[in-house]
Amino acid sequence: MQTIELQDYHILIGDFWNAFNSFLKERGYSKIVVIVDTNTSKLCLPILRQKSQYKDFEVIQIHEGEQHKTIETCQKIWQEMMKKGMERRSLTINLGGGVIGDMGGFCASTFKRGMDFIQMPTTLLSQVDASIGGKLGIDFHHIKNSIGVFKNPQAVFISSEFLNTLPKREIRSGFAEIIKHSLIADAENWEYLKTIKSLEKVEWANLLKPSLLIKQRIVEEDPFENGIRKALNFGHTIGHAIESIALQSDYPLLHGEAIAIGMICEGWLSHKILNFPLKKVEEIIHFFARFYDAFQLEEKDYSSYIELMKKDKKNENQTINFSLINPIGNAIINQTANQVLIRESLTFYNNSFGKYFNKK
Amino acid sequence: MQTIELQDYHILIGDFWNAFNSFLKERGYSKIVVIVDTNTSKLCLPILRQKSQYKDFEVIQIHEGEQHKTIETCQKIWQEMMKKGMERRSLTINLGGGVIGDMGGFCASTFKRGMDFIQMPTTLLSQVDASIGGKLGIDFHHIKNSIGVFKNPQAVFISSEFLNTLPKREIRSGFAEIIKHSLIADAENWEYLKTIKSLEKVEWANLLKPSLLIKQRIVEEDPFENGIRKALNFGHTIGHAIESIALQSDYPLLHGEAIAIGMICEGWLSHKILNFPLKKVEEIIHFFARFYDAFQLEEKDYSSYIELMKKDKKNENQTINFSLINPIGNAIINQTANQVLIRESLTFYNNSFGKYFNKK
Repeated sequence: MQTIELQDYHILIGDFWNAFNSFLKERGYSKIVVIVDTNTSKLCLPILRQKSQYKDFEVIQIHEGEQHKTIETCQKIWQEMMKKGMERRSLTINLGGGVIGDMGGFCASTFKRGMDFIQMPTTLLSQVDASIGGKLGIDFHHIKNSIGVFKNPQAVFISSEFLNTLPKREIRSGFAEIIKHSLIADAENWEYLKTIKSLEKVEWANLLKPSLLIKQRIVEEDPFENGIRKALNFGHTIGHAIESIALQSDYPLLHGEAIAIGMICEGWLSHKILNFPLKKVEEIIHFFARFYDAFQLEEKDYSSYIELMKKDKKNENQTINFSLINPIGNAIINQTANQVLIRESLTFYNNSFGKYFNKK
Repeated sequence: MQTIELQDYHILIGDFWNAFNSFLKERGYSKIVVIVDTNTSKLCLPILRQKSQYKDFEVIQIHEGEQHKTIETCQKIWQEMMKKGMERRSLTINLGGGVIGDMGGFCASTFKRGMDFIQMPTTLLSQVDASIGGKLGIDFHHIKNSIGVFKNPQAVFISSEFLNTLPKREIRSGFAEIIKHSLIADAENWEYLKTIKSLEKVEWANLLKPSLLIKQRIVEEDPFENGIRKALNFGHTIGHAIESIALQSDYPLLHGEAIAIGMICEGWLSHKILNFPLKKVEEIIHFFARFYDAFQLEEKDYSSYIELMKKDKKNENQTINFSLINPIGNAIINQTANQVLIRESLTFYNNSFGKYFNKK
């Protein structure tokens, strides 16, 4: 088991079950509820039930999928918490991907003005992305994470046992965030990542720790996202918008798949605005093409993308805020681009994609 | 103007308008929205518009009354915030009573994971009760303040100008919390309060500061209500339940009116459990009888009261938690009473009420 010690909680990676059992024993919570979705209820809850010495969990189950990360689902969760007699000295365990972690954490943090919660992320994306930073929340009127709070869990427990239950698309979705951490803060690790030819043989626990340490460094420097933490937003201004629109289409993209597209567009913006070498943008595209499927953006959606970008949390004074890179391993925050340039970046992605991506 | 300096914000009492204007100028918020209800829109917003140098406020108006302190109203507020292009560097001004302060603060604290807000409480109750402590939230499934967060405002601005707009019942509702502060923490001030014969001649600004200082001392010692802060709950375990049921009846009680009843019941519990002298309970009843109208509790509601008390946030291990007093000026937290005793306390109130209260 590996441990990352953050300022006010620990992340335990690997075979954490002894530590988990000691944690529960030590804390003596009055009641414990596990929040799961229809997937993790089947695939992960049995593992938790088998490995945990504490057996008396209450369970709240919600529907699987980003489209349920809403205030309506929160109301269902709060109501269940109420029915089950949860109180301030109770504990919530969020067993699932990003939706469960973000929404379960938000519900726990607001129920009776806050009870403890722990994160047990079961997807690669949530293991790398949601373990650090305390960002909790839900989507509102189709704007991602537009309602929420910053609050840290009591602990995060990461097991690659849960990853075995995941489809291939879920793995590459998480991989996008690992790539992002290297692009914004670790050029050396980018060189290492480039040696990966297939995602099937990767030992994820070994890639996770360095990636989480990058995020730790950035978040501890700027917990409330007033400055450098915005670096983590690389690929996300455009990627979030693409994800939101795709979510309502016949081919909903996973978060990391959309962010991969966003990083190509914003890599190109880095080229146009900061003189990031075009050759390096192409290197990034070439790398993504090994793992990600083709996805054509529709020109008719461009205006909707831009409307959504205008509503991004990180904007200031009504301009669209970007975190760009130059060179690889170095992020430059608080950049902006006008609509013409943003449209060009989307078209650049569409054109370059034709050159490099395989239809799979 | 009087100032109370708290750890991370100031309370300005009196003619604060110069300070208010400097505050806005210094902060340079990207956008400012004022949240009002149907009452404060008419009676208080014109005062704000006249006295503020900044004129470019956006306004969000909601219906007046505790019955609108719900997640549905929050959704309306969040939606308006979104429409108006509010962002993290925007400011919310909550201009109204406790409902506006609690709910507006909750919406501001959760919109885009948190923007700044200031409180401009316009009722005596919210001036004394909501200015310190960072408690924000809404009612959920008729359980008061069951969803919320702890978060401090950037500043609180208190003017007695707003009190002139209030009906008499609103004044005595706020007075109950001032009385409570003396009963739990300041015996000397209780002796002073007893000299008050009529609420019409009171200079509220002079009573507010000592009352707020008591609350400051208690809250700073225990910001997240793990211990001594529960003292502020005196009268509230029973009072909240009575308030909730009355809210759905033909005679909805104001918060302080219900808490006054709660303090009589819990004063009697203090006598039964802690040997608080019965003579002192009667002294409290006698004092309340000067200002508060008769309100008969119905025996058929007793079970509903107790069901509601079981859901109180401050409970632990499924027992009903009380903060009691003995002697006056000293609170004793984490007490519990069984249902028989609670019922007896309600009946004691009903009987003593017949002896002392005037039907007005």
